[in-house]
Amino acid sequence: MEKQKIILDCDPGHDDAVAILLAAGSPQLDLLGITVIAGNQSLEKTVRNACRVVQWIGADVPVYAGCDRPMVRPQIIAKDIHGESGLDGPVFPPLAKSPEEEHAVPWLIRTLLESDGDITVVTTGPMTNLAMALRLQPKIADKIRRIVLMGGAYANGNVTPAAEFNIIADAEAAHVCFTAGRPVTMVGLDVTRKVLCTPEIVRRMAASGTCASRLFVDLMRHFCRTQKEVFGWPGGPLHDPVTIASLLDPALLTVRPMNVQIELRSTQSYGRTNCDYFGYLGLPATADVAIDIDVGRFWDIIEEGLRRYPSAG
Amino acid sequence: MEKQKIILDCDPGHDDAVAILLAAGSPQLDLLGITVIAGNQSLEKTVRNACRVVQWIGADVPVYAGCDRPMVRPQIIAKDIHGESGLDGPVFPPLAKSPEEEHAVPWLIRTLLESDGDITVVTTGPMTNLAMALRLQPKIADKIRRIVLMGGAYANGNVTPAAEFNIIADAEAAHVCFTAGRPVTMVGLDVTRKVLCTPEIVRRMAASGTCASRLFVDLMRHFCRTQKEVFGWPGGPLHDPVTIASLLDPALLTVRPMNVQIELRSTQSYGRTNCDYFGYLGLPATADVAIDIDVGRFWDIIEEGLRRYPSAG
Amino acid sequence: MEKQKIILDCDPGHDDAVAILLAAGSPQLDLLGITVIAGNQSLEKTVRNACRVVQWIGADVPVYAGCDRPMVRPQIIAKDIHGESGLDGPVFPPLAKSPEEEHAVPWLIRTLLESDGDITVVTTGPMTNLAMALRLQPKIADKIRRIVLMGGAYANGNVTPAAEFNIIADAEAAHVCFTAGRPVTMVGLDVTRKVLCTPEIVRRMAASGTCASRLFVDLMRHFCRTQKEVFGWPGGPLHDPVTIASLLDPALLTVRPMNVQIELRSTQSYGRTNCDYFGYLGLPATADVAIDIDVGRFWDIIEEGLRRYPSAG
Amino acid sequence: MEKQKIILDCDPGHDDAVAILLAAGSPQLDLLGITVIAGNQSLEKTVRNACRVVQWIGADVPVYAGCDRPMVRPQIIAKDIHGESGLDGPVFPPLAKSPEEEHAVPWLIRTLLESDGDITVVTTGPMTNLAMALRLQPKIADKIRRIVLMGGAYANGNVTPAAEFNIIADAEAAHVCFTAGRPVTMVGLDVTRKVLCTPEIVRRMAASGTCASRLFVDLMRHFCRTQKEVFGWPGGPLHDPVTIASLLDPALLTVRPMNVQIELRSTQSYGRTNCDYFGYLGLPATADVAIDIDVGRFWDIIEEGLRRYPSAG
Repeated sequence: MEKQKIILDCDPGHDDAVAILLAAGSPQLDLLGITVIAGNQSLEKTVRNACRVVQWIGADVPVYAGCDRPMVRPQIIAKDIHGESGLDGPVFPPLAKSPEEEHAVPWLIRTLLESDGDITVVTTGPMTNLAMALRLQPKIADKIRRIVLMGGAYANGNVTPAAEFNIIADAEAAHVCFTAGRPVTMVGLDVTRKVLCTPEIVRRMAASGTCASRLFVDLMRHFCRTQKEVFGWPGGPLHDPVTIASLLDPALLTVRPMNVQIELRSTQSYGRTNCDYFGYLGLPATADVAIDIDVGRFWDIIEEGLRRYPSAG
Repeated sequence: MEKQKIILDCDPGHDDAVAILLAAGSPQLDLLGITVIAGNQSLEKTVRNACRVVQWIGADVPVYAGCDRPMVRPQIIAKDIHGESGLDGPVFPPLAKSPEEEHAVPWLIRTLLESDGDITVVTTGPMTNLAMALRLQPKIADKIRRIVLMGGAYANGNVTPAAEFNIIADAEAAHVCFTAGRPVTMVGLDVTRKVLCTPEIVRRMAASGTCASRLFVDLMRHFCRTQKEVFGWPGGPLHDPVTIASLLDPALLTVRPMNVQIELRSTQSYGRTNCDYFGYLGLPATADVAIDIDVGRFWDIIEEGLRRYPSAG
Repeated sequence: MEKQKIILDCDPGHDDAVAILLAAGSPQLDLLGITVIAGNQSLEKTVRNACRVVQWIGADVPVYAGCDRPMVRPQIIAKDIHGESGLDGPVFPPLAKSPEEEHAVPWLIRTLLESDGDITVVTTGPMTNLAMALRLQPKIADKIRRIVLMGGAYANGNVTPAAEFNIIADAEAAHVCFTAGRPVTMVGLDVTRKVLCTPEIVRRMAASGTCASRLFVDLMRHFCRTQKEVFGWPGGPLHDPVTIASLLDPALLTVRPMNVQIELRSTQSYGRTNCDYFGYLGLPATADVAIDIDVGRFWDIIEEGLRRYPSAG
Repeated sequence: MEKQKIILDCDPGHDDAVAILLAAGSPQLDLLGITVIAGNQSLEKTVRNACRVVQWIGADVPVYAGCDRPMVRPQIIAKDIHGESGLDGPVFPPLAKSPEEEHAVPWLIRTLLESDGDITVVTTGPMTNLAMALRLQPKIADKIRRIVLMGGAYANGNVTPAAEFNIIADAEAAHVCFTAGRPVTMVGLDVTRKVLCTPEIVRRMAASGTCASRLFVDLMRHFCRTQKEVFGWPGGPLHDPVTIASLLDPALLTVRPMNVQIELRSTQSYGRTNCDYFGYLGLPATADVAIDIDVGRFWDIIEEGLRRYPSAG
């Protein structure tokens, strides 16, 4: 079976880190590169974090630093959840892995232009890198197989009542990506809030004893504590890996095609993904929006993913 | 036990009509008057419909015609759901009941000013009448015991992805009412969509054989059909009566205090009730927002309400 | 010659006071009543100021207190220009004149409905009273001969770069009035900034020695000082009386029919009167917008108006 | 005397073409390159037009094609003014000059990064190229000596009542440039509307008989006709060359430092440059806004610029 080619655009971040673990280790995926964006922390930190994770698992995947701020709006970062380093929790060895020289945006443009249109772009942070690439070189749109993003919500946001972090952090970029004319799968809070990484889940994942599961455990201990402190959850919702898991098992998510528009005009509702769940507007669907997830299957996929790595030393 | 004094501000409309049935017939409530607003149909029609319902059940309740359009925005009406008359379905006898001479707004002002601050204002339509009264005579705010409204949603709207009908029809009015400094109970689509009036429910209510149940049945046959045609529901959500039912049984709804802000600035999200479910904004709660409903109890309350009327001739 | 019937809706305010002097003393105008709105100061103070001015000149004109706040937005007042009393400067005798019992809005409705459609409504403050009347009783629109307002600007505002005080103080009300379907004359900052009340003008007006000219002088000494302090002008622009003067001499203003839309959606530009000076939008004209003024003629009209009053004791 | 280094970012366009004539021929300026943006016409056409003008005058200046659409909003072009080719009027010889391979944005980044901070960037079209460069490589901001733009207005726009073409065509880009922290000179319609290229001016410029004056004449005949047809002007306002002329003679413009904010939120006022002319907001000045121009001096500069070229063959 042919591997799915993907690019992972992320801002690690604890759940991004798990997405990397899942993507880099899967025999079903060909992870062409990791492009990094500011978001859960500043760009300098998210790039370092991406390198740390790739180094930890010994993966041979290039990391490209992208934009350090949003297209238009002032920058926000999510350090209350992800801590000062953006990946608080684990103790990482000295960093040997470095990012590539090339900026993520020209690399995205080049890689997509040279491709056969078979690359899926997965974004688990603010969508600035992909949007900038689409505006610098609009021809890449035809080369994107599908955009799969963690972001948005048709019900409550997680930064404001209206908006989710990855979208509110650069709603203009999200708008550019959603209107690029390519198939979009939106994995929003409506489903990612269902996969709560409880202490029980952490214990289950610890059992496999691989280097990846050890990293998972160290990451989740911090993540679940801050999610509990900030939001009062029993466990942290493991948002970002749902995107990768959905590529590994297309039956994982129930999706519904909807017209989705990004709110750019209002301060109060800025960044809301207005998803026409019931089709009131009579407009064409522009995204497959995840409305349900097979939670048991999700944790199985995570477990399989972590088990695939060699035992921790 | 003392009766709760209420004013019902409505735009009948099928579900408003059931709210009137429930409010006018309850021994727990003292329905001081019905004020009418344009909404489900034009004012002329909603006033006639309020009179028709009051006449049908022989209630001695004055009806006051209010504003025929929103405070600021252009008017919208909901005739796809409620039909040409606003109350399609039943065959009403010739109309003998007329509305009072006085306009609803000065009557609201006068009645509230003269009260002991013990009147609950229930709105089941656009909130224009109450908002206009609050702006013409701000002193009435202190006299309102509580505002209980059917309107809004923290998840999907029912006119646009962002907004519910009663709020989008006059979001400026809703803003005025939500910021009046009085206790507010918001009964939104998040709970009213759970009380679907299925054919089975209609059959159950028909059994009591009162004049009210006969009207209920005639109304619901039309309402459920259009709801099915327009939205694809198995039964029509009986939005408006939830407000009255919640006064009859305070345990009916689970509510959560939230900061609620009405979106007035964006065309796309206009009329959304941004409810800070998780308290992200750190702002004071401004409304008790219904987040769950005891569906079985609701239908029991409806049935009890309909049974209280005399048998149909 | 028949007198023009007018209602003056104002928020005195120094320049409003001069508008009252001009309107109450003119043999060409029949000033039916003065309705008062909060604006330059709180309602309590602007009502008192209207009564003070009417008493000072011994006019027999009823004063009606109107709305104490805007339709939708939070209130702002302009006390940096008009001082703590709203009419700082003159020493007024003890107040004998009181406002009428009736609220300005029902009085406006009643007076307009009973009229033959020959009343011009002049507003020199936020347009809340007229807008509330139009929404409570839309039939009055047909009875308004013309709305003449001081407000707005097609160039720079005077509260923000975008907006003038009377409009930004209640842009929703302005929108309601501009879209009422009646002829509108907009006298904005574009012309009122040309009539600067310099010390020389004050000396000229002092010469006539009437009670009105004495009041004018006492008012302008304060007004010109604060305008100079706040804006650096050589004299205060005498905004409000331009409306009344334009009724006394139709040749005073050069007007141009334009499509005018009021900005309600943006925080930054809220209250701007977007006047389509060059007709770019291809939409019908909705107001006669003043684009020039005969400054010499204006001061002659003011002088004639002040001279008409009896000599100061 | 050292030449001023400049980059000209433009969308030719008749008045852009004159700006090129002025910039390329001046001994005071070192025109490092011309970067091209879509605007007055599609990118393909504006690039061709830039090459045509450079070829016509035999200048050795590289031309770089930039972005073909705005950062966020849908594209608009101004073909009613500039015709089907974007430079209707002259008959150009077959095109020999081609644009460089490199995209304008990376070239801007590279050139600015390698500079000593002595390059002025002049934009006479939508500001997309510079904004994209600033977002891809924020370090270039420190290397920009000054941004001099033709765009905006504090009074009336020329596309809507609120907005001027270069800003409304990509207001997000303008916002990025105005907030880059560098000195900005805004040459808006407030001054450029004063330099009307009347038939008399065209005759005067024709007299010098150089190749540049011949091109000027052929361009202006078309431009003045469409300006007259679309706006009713006696001559076309020669917007873009005012930027270059202001570099050649710093006394040409009267400027006033103002806080300038770009309206991004409202549909109605989108793209307005809210210039705080009177300092109402109490915010720091962010741009030197041109408020007057020495019209006679401007035409002298144009004439001197055209005369510098060799005689037309």
